[in-house]
Amino acid sequence: MTSDTIAAVVMTGAGRPLEPRRFVAPRPRPGGAVLETIASEVCGTDVHLHHGRLAGVPYPIIPGHVSVGRVLESNGPLSDVDGREIRPGRLVTFYDVYGTCDGCWHCLVAKTPTRCLNRRVYGITASADDGLLGGWAERIEILPGVRLIPLPDGLDVLDFMGGGCGLPTGFHAVERAGITLGDTVVVQGSGPVGLNATIFAQLAGALRVLVIGAPKLRLEAARRLGAEEVLDITEETSEERVRWVRDRTSGRGADVVIEASGNPAAVSEGLEMLRDGGRYVVVGQYTDAGDTALNPHRHINRKHATILGCWGYEFTHLHRALAMMVRYNGRFRWRELVTREYGLADAGRALEDMERLRVVKALIRLER
Amino acid sequence: MTSDTIAAVVMTGAGRPLEPRRFVAPRPRPGGAVLETIASEVCGTDVHLHHGRLAGVPYPIIPGHVSVGRVLESNGPLSDVDGREIRPGRLVTFYDVYGTCDGCWHCLVAKTPTRCLNRRVYGITASADDGLLGGWAERIEILPGVRLIPLPDGLDVLDFMGGGCGLPTGFHAVERAGITLGDTVVVQGSGPVGLNATIFAQLAGALRVLVIGAPKLRLEAARRLGAEEVLDITEETSEERVRWVRDRTSGRGADVVIEASGNPAAVSEGLEMLRDGGRYVVVGQYTDAGDTALNPHRHINRKHATILGCWGYEFTHLHRALAMMVRYNGRFRWRELVTREYGLADAGRALEDMERLRVVKALIRLER
Amino acid sequence: MTSDTIAAVVMTGAGRPLEPRRFVAPRPRPGGAVLETIASEVCGTDVHLHHGRLAGVPYPIIPGHVSVGRVLESNGPLSDVDGREIRPGRLVTFYDVYGTCDGCWHCLVAKTPTRCLNRRVYGITASADDGLLGGWAERIEILPGVRLIPLPDGLDVLDFMGGGCGLPTGFHAVERAGITLGDTVVVQGSGPVGLNATIFAQLAGALRVLVIGAPKLRLEAARRLGAEEVLDITEETSEERVRWVRDRTSGRGADVVIEASGNPAAVSEGLEMLRDGGRYVVVGQYTDAGDTALNPHRHINRKHATILGCWGYEFTHLHRALAMMVRYNGRFRWRELVTREYGLADAGRALEDMERLRVVKALIRLER
Amino acid sequence: MTSDTIAAVVMTGAGRPLEPRRFVAPRPRPGGAVLETIASEVCGTDVHLHHGRLAGVPYPIIPGHVSVGRVLESNGPLSDVDGREIRPGRLVTFYDVYGTCDGCWHCLVAKTPTRCLNRRVYGITASADDGLLGGWAERIEILPGVRLIPLPDGLDVLDFMGGGCGLPTGFHAVERAGITLGDTVVVQGSGPVGLNATIFAQLAGALRVLVIGAPKLRLEAARRLGAEEVLDITEETSEERVRWVRDRTSGRGADVVIEASGNPAAVSEGLEMLRDGGRYVVVGQYTDAGDTALNPHRHINRKHATILGCWGYEFTHLHRALAMMVRYNGRFRWRELVTREYGLADAGRALEDMERLRVVKALIRLER
Repeated sequence: MTSDTIAAVVMTGAGRPLEPRRFVAPRPRPGGAVLETIASEVCGTDVHLHHGRLAGVPYPIIPGHVSVGRVLESNGPLSDVDGREIRPGRLVTFYDVYGTCDGCWHCLVAKTPTRCLNRRVYGITASADDGLLGGWAERIEILPGVRLIPLPDGLDVLDFMGGGCGLPTGFHAVERAGITLGDTVVVQGSGPVGLNATIFAQLAGALRVLVIGAPKLRLEAARRLGAEEVLDITEETSEERVRWVRDRTSGRGADVVIEASGNPAAVSEGLEMLRDGGRYVVVGQYTDAGDTALNPHRHINRKHATILGCWGYEFTHLHRALAMMVRYNGRFRWRELVTREYGLADAGRALEDMERLRVVKALIRLER
Repeated sequence: MTSDTIAAVVMTGAGRPLEPRRFVAPRPRPGGAVLETIASEVCGTDVHLHHGRLAGVPYPIIPGHVSVGRVLESNGPLSDVDGREIRPGRLVTFYDVYGTCDGCWHCLVAKTPTRCLNRRVYGITASADDGLLGGWAERIEILPGVRLIPLPDGLDVLDFMGGGCGLPTGFHAVERAGITLGDTVVVQGSGPVGLNATIFAQLAGALRVLVIGAPKLRLEAARRLGAEEVLDITEETSEERVRWVRDRTSGRGADVVIEASGNPAAVSEGLEMLRDGGRYVVVGQYTDAGDTALNPHRHINRKHATILGCWGYEFTHLHRALAMMVRYNGRFRWRELVTREYGLADAGRALEDMERLRVVKALIRLER
Repeated sequence: MTSDTIAAVVMTGAGRPLEPRRFVAPRPRPGGAVLETIASEVCGTDVHLHHGRLAGVPYPIIPGHVSVGRVLESNGPLSDVDGREIRPGRLVTFYDVYGTCDGCWHCLVAKTPTRCLNRRVYGITASADDGLLGGWAERIEILPGVRLIPLPDGLDVLDFMGGGCGLPTGFHAVERAGITLGDTVVVQGSGPVGLNATIFAQLAGALRVLVIGAPKLRLEAARRLGAEEVLDITEETSEERVRWVRDRTSGRGADVVIEASGNPAAVSEGLEMLRDGGRYVVVGQYTDAGDTALNPHRHINRKHATILGCWGYEFTHLHRALAMMVRYNGRFRWRELVTREYGLADAGRALEDMERLRVVKALIRLER
Repeated sequence: MTSDTIAAVVMTGAGRPLEPRRFVAPRPRPGGAVLETIASEVCGTDVHLHHGRLAGVPYPIIPGHVSVGRVLESNGPLSDVDGREIRPGRLVTFYDVYGTCDGCWHCLVAKTPTRCLNRRVYGITASADDGLLGGWAERIEILPGVRLIPLPDGLDVLDFMGGGCGLPTGFHAVERAGITLGDTVVVQGSGPVGLNATIFAQLAGALRVLVIGAPKLRLEAARRLGAEEVLDITEETSEERVRWVRDRTSGRGADVVIEASGNPAAVSEGLEMLRDGGRYVVVGQYTDAGDTALNPHRHINRKHATILGCWGYEFTHLHRALAMMVRYNGRFRWRELVTREYGLADAGRALEDMERLRVVKALIRLER
């Protein structure tokens, strides 16, 4: 049923070229499964991985944390979260976080599972020495306990991959924001996370969403996805951007601002855009890009602000984001976020296009 | 019933000496009242006012925002929030905020009354040209609509004044912190706000409170008020202080940190003391003391932190804080926070002692 | 500018016929205004008023709590919540609650203004002896402090009146429900409140809304307003209705159920439709229609249910609901909820049609 | 190290006498352990079990869900939630819920683990045919994955057992109540859950707690544990009890009422005791004792009430309750709740004393 060896792309270290490598075809461990990869994401995290901006990455790794595959083989019965059986041949995706222990202080007492110390992520903190634990490969090994999600009826591979990891991340950021009906929301950043935040902010009750970002390609996507207005960050100064928001909010600032840019300076600028008593979500600072200056009196205390960091996402966010995608796939065309598809051999080029923002999303698509 | 003129102390401008001045004895406006002052607070805000660190202060002002007086005369019936009549002769305090409109966008739509643009505060944003609207005077004019609170049975003037404006401010900060049963709480700052936060954090369910501050006099007060341990900020470096907290929290940091210091640098230090998923309240940055450097990745995003600015207090905080003081006045000796009492003529010295941290709280006590 | 007397319709007591009556044309009190009535609602509350099912109604009253009028005259400047001037000639509606004191324990301490003991409502708890305080009249008197809202650009009278009092009530119910992205929501009842809850549940992030009600006319409206499926309550038993919901929710029940029916038995039935850990909002029990049997073990405790009563609405709900109506008036055609318009002289017939559910909404429309 | 067989007490079915039985001494499964039992609780649940009032109980069972034992043997290393090793000889208790899957819809999507369908509880839903999974036995088998908690320094067996399962249950109820500083709390029921709710309500910020229950023995315990006033339910009518609460709350009712009585009629009575906008927690309806009549208009809708069912408890509740017990063991003398200790052979008498309310808590104490 499986060939003897399979192809994969390996990131061997920070700054080094991607490397094609062949692996022995894996067999599922008890309780696990093996997928035949259909598509895998190239995202901003992969650019960060390539630059060595994340701590604790066990290079060499096989990138690709969000993927779709077909169940090739399982070792024991598989089922989804509703207890329905998943049979070989089914198209699935999976929650890319594994190892969360449900047994430590963070999981059990504080109930902050995204901060569990045992947490590992496919394509990011899983070493290629431990198996095919990333999507830039012809096969993906599903470890026991990893949560499979059948691709729902009505969605095809491109729909889902258009969302990618930005889908549950943007969803989580919007949930964290506690949007109430009628809020004016500003999104800083027009990458996949910012665009998904733009979508889910509307679905969660925002009156309107204003997006500040670049380049044009992404701002156009923001408009198509319902942003009332967009502002090109390269054409205005910070002060003008703040004034642009205040001019649209009776001078008060926005009820909610979601930072999805990755630029530390966005934080103080975003707080200037926030109304007194508003909520500010920081979701874009995935890597350490340095410090920023903040004024605790003006930005936090007198503003009576609520600032909410948002790390990773939980299964519930992916599960519910996917259900919403099924329902709203007509109104929001996630698939159009995939600017271009690449073969496994072209992963390096995909990474480069992503880095240079030539694409909204890049996809590794395996031929069949 | 009243003398023809009454004595008051006036702050005529930033950096200028306090000035004794006599005013025509006021008569109550319709719906208002006049109090004979018994005692009025000297607090950190008064020091800020004297240094000109607050914007929009309409000098000359009569300082003293939290006071106790005896109802001398009213123009129409007076009642408390429960509808019970307040008669002349009764000892009362009052909610020092007036002018909040219950009619603007902040009051009605966002429901953030402490950010109402029409909000004024006795002793801070009320001009002496408009009347006796501060407690450093023999009489206080109660404007129509100002909420009077009879001093409850079981509390005397000193008990209440020992709480002062730090009582509802610390209460508000603790409410904003959303303390849950079993939390470890760090309080940065051992002034009146920090000490009241120490008290209310315990009453709200904290397992233990650790206080970091200075000088010794205040740290001793913190210990008497139930702090499990205290740390003298002058004897340790920032890194040592962070380690001190982590050593006491399984290396994870505290569940809640409350900043009540007024030092911008406390914010980044406090976030280092906070556990992942914890809550950080900024209540001490009442004036603009400059910027501080923050790392959005490490301090907010990856930490999944919740940072909560806390501005002013609402009537509900004062009302409920006072009820708690009545019940817990035995366990926590608020009156002992008043290190020293001064006559009206000695207001300047009181201010100086406050500024130099020679006292925990200073009180203007009018002779009778 | 005004005629000497104006026409109105008066409800003189429970069960008595409506009575046309002429009043002296009112002049605005200081801070108040007079509106020339354009349209006023006939709603389920008016039917209850006519049956004498509300306590404390000071008959005779002029019904009509939600109305649109044109500012005829004011006594002093008028402005909206943003401080913008409202000039004579402007089309406005207003927050129908007045008298809320912002001074009592409920307003200030508990912050539950819809339970303020001084709260009065136009058209419901205002006596005709006190003035033109209801919309079934050619003029409406705006008392000082009543909050005017200019009809926004892009909405005409019929759009707004199609929402009527069901708009902010349904909005409030949905806010109280705490809907999270992806929730399945059941709405019990297809009257104006249920239909607006159907709309706002979707806008607040519901994956889908299932509506149970009658008659066909209203269920068809529910479908047009986005309900995924509807069930005619007259065609199924209670057990079948519960099964109908469970069949659509993996057997678990809905995440959120909103009761908007007014039938006490709906409460236990609705709790059977609710999943474990779900939220149940009771907004339809506006009058006392008797008791119902509940099983505290099965319906509340073991289910770990959250049950939320929802009384009245605050200004913020009306303000934000209106903003959402402006934005979503294309997707949801509120104006189509007005089945029929009646002249002032036909108010009795409008009331009867409302009572017999021959219309979704009835409107008193004054000729000009 | 272990004898060949060990003694246990078995409940063979509803209404049948308890039966002494000997079991082969168990050896730990991989990842599991065996405890030498020191003490085990006799609680109201055991009375319910004996009466057959719980559904799905796999008789025969070994009762005793909350216990303390000494680690006799483990199969692999053991550790607590902080990762600290637990060695043989250590006194421990354990979270009595096992089997929760962290994999189903309830665990992962809704995050309501106390409603996980795979959830099992020591001493309640574990069959004696499956091993020594209850505390009324000389040994307790700790299954792999069951969370051990070392008995903290400063607590002895009697302190902890005085809390028993009422400790985390009362803790959970108080957390669910969302008590805010200054709340007046009524507790209905003076059994172990009600008494622990009385304690934790105070620790969570209640101004005062009023307890309604019986018999005298338990009401005296309530007073010792800080209840401001108590009312003997056998001496007053329902109307008098409601009036008693209203007389103590300015006629408004309590901010929070916690039902811990098990009597369905307590629910409507408790809602009469609740103020408008208050919170009502139902934690005592652990078994189905029938329906009660409720008035949805008066009790829920107009009251703008929040009613919160509370099922079971999570690890976090037990963990944090225990930490609070360590700190507050001087102020609240949990150990005094144990009215009497019984040998294993006297389990039947303990059960009977519990049923007849002759004791606050009964304890099975194994001789050593």
